[in-house]
Amino acid sequence: MAITPEMAKKWRARGVRILLQHDAGRAAGFPDAAYADVEFADAAAVLAQADLLACVLPPDDAALAQLRPGSVVVGQLRPHGASARIAQLVDARLTSFSLELLPRTTRAQAMDVLSSQAAVAGYRAMLIAAEASPKFFPMLTTAAGTIRPSKVLVIGAGVAGLQAIATARRLGAQTEGYDVRPETREQVESLGAKFLELGVSAAGSGGYARELSAEERAAQQQALAEHLKSIDVIVTTAAVPGRPAPKILSAAMVEGMKPGALIVDLAAEGGGNCELTQPGQRVEHAGVVILGPLNLPAGAPLHASEMYARNVFNFGELLLHDGALAPDFNDELVAKSCVSHAGEVRFTA
Amino acid sequence: MAITPEMAKKWRARGVRILLQHDAGRAAGFPDAAYADVEFADAAAVLAQADLLACVLPPDDAALAQLRPGSVVVGQLRPHGASARIAQLVDARLTSFSLELLPRTTRAQAMDVLSSQAAVAGYRAMLIAAEASPKFFPMLTTAAGTIRPSKVLVIGAGVAGLQAIATARRLGAQTEGYDVRPETREQVESLGAKFLELGVSAAGSGGYARELSAEERAAQQQALAEHLKSIDVIVTTAAVPGRPAPKILSAAMVEGMKPGALIVDLAAEGGGNCELTQPGQRVEHAGVVILGPLNLPAGAPLHASEMYARNVFNFGELLLHDGALAPDFNDELVAKSCVSHAGEVRFTA
Repeated sequence: MAITPEMAKKWRARGVRILLQHDAGRAAGFPDAAYADVEFADAAAVLAQADLLACVLPPDDAALAQLRPGSVVVGQLRPHGASARIAQLVDARLTSFSLELLPRTTRAQAMDVLSSQAAVAGYRAMLIAAEASPKFFPMLTTAAGTIRPSKVLVIGAGVAGLQAIATARRLGAQTEGYDVRPETREQVESLGAKFLELGVSAAGSGGYARELSAEERAAQQQALAEHLKSIDVIVTTAAVPGRPAPKILSAAMVEGMKPGALIVDLAAEGGGNCELTQPGQRVEHAGVVILGPLNLPAGAPLHASEMYARNVFNFGELLLHDGALAPDFNDELVAKSCVSHAGEVRFTA
Repeated sequence: MAITPEMAKKWRARGVRILLQHDAGRAAGFPDAAYADVEFADAAAVLAQADLLACVLPPDDAALAQLRPGSVVVGQLRPHGASARIAQLVDARLTSFSLELLPRTTRAQAMDVLSSQAAVAGYRAMLIAAEASPKFFPMLTTAAGTIRPSKVLVIGAGVAGLQAIATARRLGAQTEGYDVRPETREQVESLGAKFLELGVSAAGSGGYARELSAEERAAQQQALAEHLKSIDVIVTTAAVPGRPAPKILSAAMVEGMKPGALIVDLAAEGGGNCELTQPGQRVEHAGVVILGPLNLPAGAPLHASEMYARNVFNFGELLLHDGALAPDFNDELVAKSCVSHAGEVRFTA
């Protein structure tokens, strides 16, 4: 939900009139009755009247066609590889901003939907892993003897990976984090996890890893395959928006793992970090279960919405001047997140 | 699985020959190849040869009919209200022991399947709750603001309840425990949770609560209803084997809760602690979701089996003397857990 009751108040305080589609927030835990001082209408009326449309996922073609030329769309518009959608935004003369395109600078943090939604995804991925694993995560001491803690490995130490590590640690698992960017070591260790050392570094730019050379990948994979033999649960989180997810876990590696081991592939949406991953499916291979859950933040809609709605509001403040929409394209955050404006494509993949 | 590879070694060391049904342990994470020095056969051959049959749940009628008169059956035989099964055990002249019937004394702890399986159930119930809740359990501080931790209440502070409390605490929720037995306060507090005070005490015997009077129940329920308005997640664990689960949460109480709140009813097998619970189902009522999961230990089969198999072995030691089966009925643990022997019913409900 792009506007929560809390954020509706803030928008109102900026002089903005709010029109909500009936029941738009209900599934996320925000019934219409929770909103004060907003108007409700059906979807068609909302689209016909909106100067600014705040959304979570890209509106469908029919919805875009109902918006007035010159209106502004703000949301996660998934522009990568979506040339048909971009063409429609341009043709409809909409000014559209995709929050995934914000540069990852300090000033952009308060509107960084990739971070806020990745935190939810990392937390939920580890809960799903703990629930699906045939083993306990924590050590358990009972009158019938001691149960050893599970060994958990998180691959990729971005926001999602770090949240997954934190959750595994909270649950009492013996937790390791791995990332090709050596500068993540400190963050992994600060969560009480061990940083897995495979002897390959791929420090990149913009906070993402660079692609590895073929030799580097081979060395990384051999060391990883050996290590995986002792692991009970893997959560993979290596994804760069708009690019296919790097294949880190091969079928051969999975075959070397213990029966009963579990992989939760958070990069399933981009094809997966494991070559056996089927997006949205449960796969069993050589006694190892591989889950490829999709749209994980939707599983914790209330808190995911609270963070997302704050991101949208904070971005909205860049567009508003004295209660009127006036995007300043000299602002890097406005310029870089713009997909379409005044009949032109502004997005470069 | 009643015999794990680790326990198979221990049985062998006591001079016992072990015959396993092919693939009996596979689903729990113990493939046949994991066992050393045991024999494998099909189910019929196992039953025809067994002097002692170790099982997890009661064998079905056909299986019981294949056992030789005088053989011993050890497992969770669920004798309460199962007069037909008891009659068959007697008619087949089987000596049967149901581990749920063990007195809850210090000496019996190492074979107490209720405790070991309740620990698994409590842990898993809270994971299911965390995954199904629309809210984060932990507090989360992000650039887009702070997410408040969930408020979790666990009703019933036995082994399952305490494990549920520990798991909620690990996950960072603001956790409360409630039990009518005031002596549980210290245990709840030792896990870092708050003990919920409703002004009703029902200290009972044998470690279980006594039944409350009508007035006491009314006072308890009114105070509870008021308190529940602020709670995000409830896990209920109030169950006494062989009795219907006490109805603690009424429909009216559920209706007073916040939309998006969640109840996981661990007592679903005995009818549930919430009057809206449907065993094995998901129910939604006034915006509150009520889950009634069944057989929770089976969801963590590897560790549940490790503990269960140790319980069975420890009990088996009471029956074995120099490698031969010779139950000593003067031993309280043997006598009290016996369901049938020498053509007689030994179990009194």
